[in-house]
Amino acid sequence: MIPQVGLVFPRFRSSLVPSFHPTASLRGWAAGDSIQGVNPTIIGVAGGSGSGKTTVVQEIIKSLGADQVSFIQHDSYYYDRSSVPPEERSRLNYDHPDALETSLLVRHLKELKAGRAIEVPVYDFTQHTRTNETLTISSRNAVIVEGILILADRELRELMDIRVFVDTDADLRILRRMDRDLTERGRSLESVVQQYMETVRPMHLEFVEPSKRYAHVIIPEGGHNRVAVGMLIARVRAAVDDQ
Amino acid sequence: MIPQVGLVFPRFRSSLVPSFHPTASLRGWAAGDSIQGVNPTIIGVAGGSGSGKTTVVQEIIKSLGADQVSFIQHDSYYYDRSSVPPEERSRLNYDHPDALETSLLVRHLKELKAGRAIEVPVYDFTQHTRTNETLTISSRNAVIVEGILILADRELRELMDIRVFVDTDADLRILRRMDRDLTERGRSLESVVQQYMETVRPMHLEFVEPSKRYAHVIIPEGGHNRVAVGMLIARVRAAVDDQ
Repeated sequence: MIPQVGLVFPRFRSSLVPSFHPTASLRGWAAGDSIQGVNPTIIGVAGGSGSGKTTVVQEIIKSLGADQVSFIQHDSYYYDRSSVPPEERSRLNYDHPDALETSLLVRHLKELKAGRAIEVPVYDFTQHTRTNETLTISSRNAVIVEGILILADRELRELMDIRVFVDTDADLRILRRMDRDLTERGRSLESVVQQYMETVRPMHLEFVEPSKRYAHVIIPEGGHNRVAVGMLIARVRAAVDDQ
Repeated sequence: MIPQVGLVFPRFRSSLVPSFHPTASLRGWAAGDSIQGVNPTIIGVAGGSGSGKTTVVQEIIKSLGADQVSFIQHDSYYYDRSSVPPEERSRLNYDHPDALETSLLVRHLKELKAGRAIEVPVYDFTQHTRTNETLTISSRNAVIVEGILILADRELRELMDIRVFVDTDADLRILRRMDRDLTERGRSLESVVQQYMETVRPMHLEFVEPSKRYAHVIIPEGGHNRVAVGMLIARVRAAVDDQ
């Protein structure tokens, strides 16, 4: 989940005003506008927390060009928690499928599939609320959807043309997660382990791991697996070229 | 392992004289000749018996053209068993790595990598002997190596640029194997189950399954997984085009 290739993902930005996003509209497409000649291939990239799936996606986007790929993260669709007292919000289970408004993502993918732009919610991960901002994502020939739970929802996964699962051993995943949360987010070791044991791990075993069965392709070791990333890039390039 | 796309694999041919092979030399290259400008990418396709790996390979070759791909089966490198009394030969363990002359395959891959043609042994599966025939395989930009054990040998797998493991549930694999052996090879159910329990299954658990760890890409369900096959084809096409 650590950005390594120069792309800045909304989740890691200190400001919530979108200054750059690989698929933000550059030409002012508004939601509802249809782009002629677009034939989107939807590629889902799933995998557990710390598996390296974000790195895989970044490598694809870096290779093909940010203007060639529509990129959506399931995380953007977290439900707004304004109604929950702030001190309780951090104790909620954000690793359960019910924490995400997947039905909205499903509608959005159908819009992109039809060639129309969408307005993706911009989530404030510090407050656990949706901001008033949205990010306009136009429809392109290659649409990448990323998230730990995207293969767990039947309607969502059936919209995908290519389902990828990044499969990394659990010990490596917790070590990466620890590194990220301690270094980048300034959290304590104790809090990282507590969250891992209370929600991340049980939700992984209950929802993420079984959803691997629905993958078309399983990629061991995520972003470090340059061969698999090269294969994915070749396939997404074919989609961009509409082959 | 059932040919489905019109290609005839040596293993299933009634005659041992090579009348057609996807990578047989069409232009009279002799072993040792070097082809200028060849830059081989070696793609290994592994997976248990009945996993569907042969179908995957056939789909790739069908899509790219038999004259674009050098295709080698590890099975061609079985040791000659002339010195074993014929009645004992069928009781040998052909699923153990030691049954194959992998060192010769390694040398052959190095030859192909250097742009030189090779002479692949033609094995007589009914007699468990090597015939006097060889099959000339010329070096091409895409070299596919197939076999259940190709990822189990370190030197062999380190020669591969792309390592694929076709991963199919064990129940589906035994059912496919049964179908093939009963229908195509006229064997009894009892003998199929006996061989499966005595050698196929234990060797799978000991050598094939652990070798999955060395795969760059894991493909569930083999030839029926059209999405993964499409991805592989896109990657092998890039190799053929030397991208």
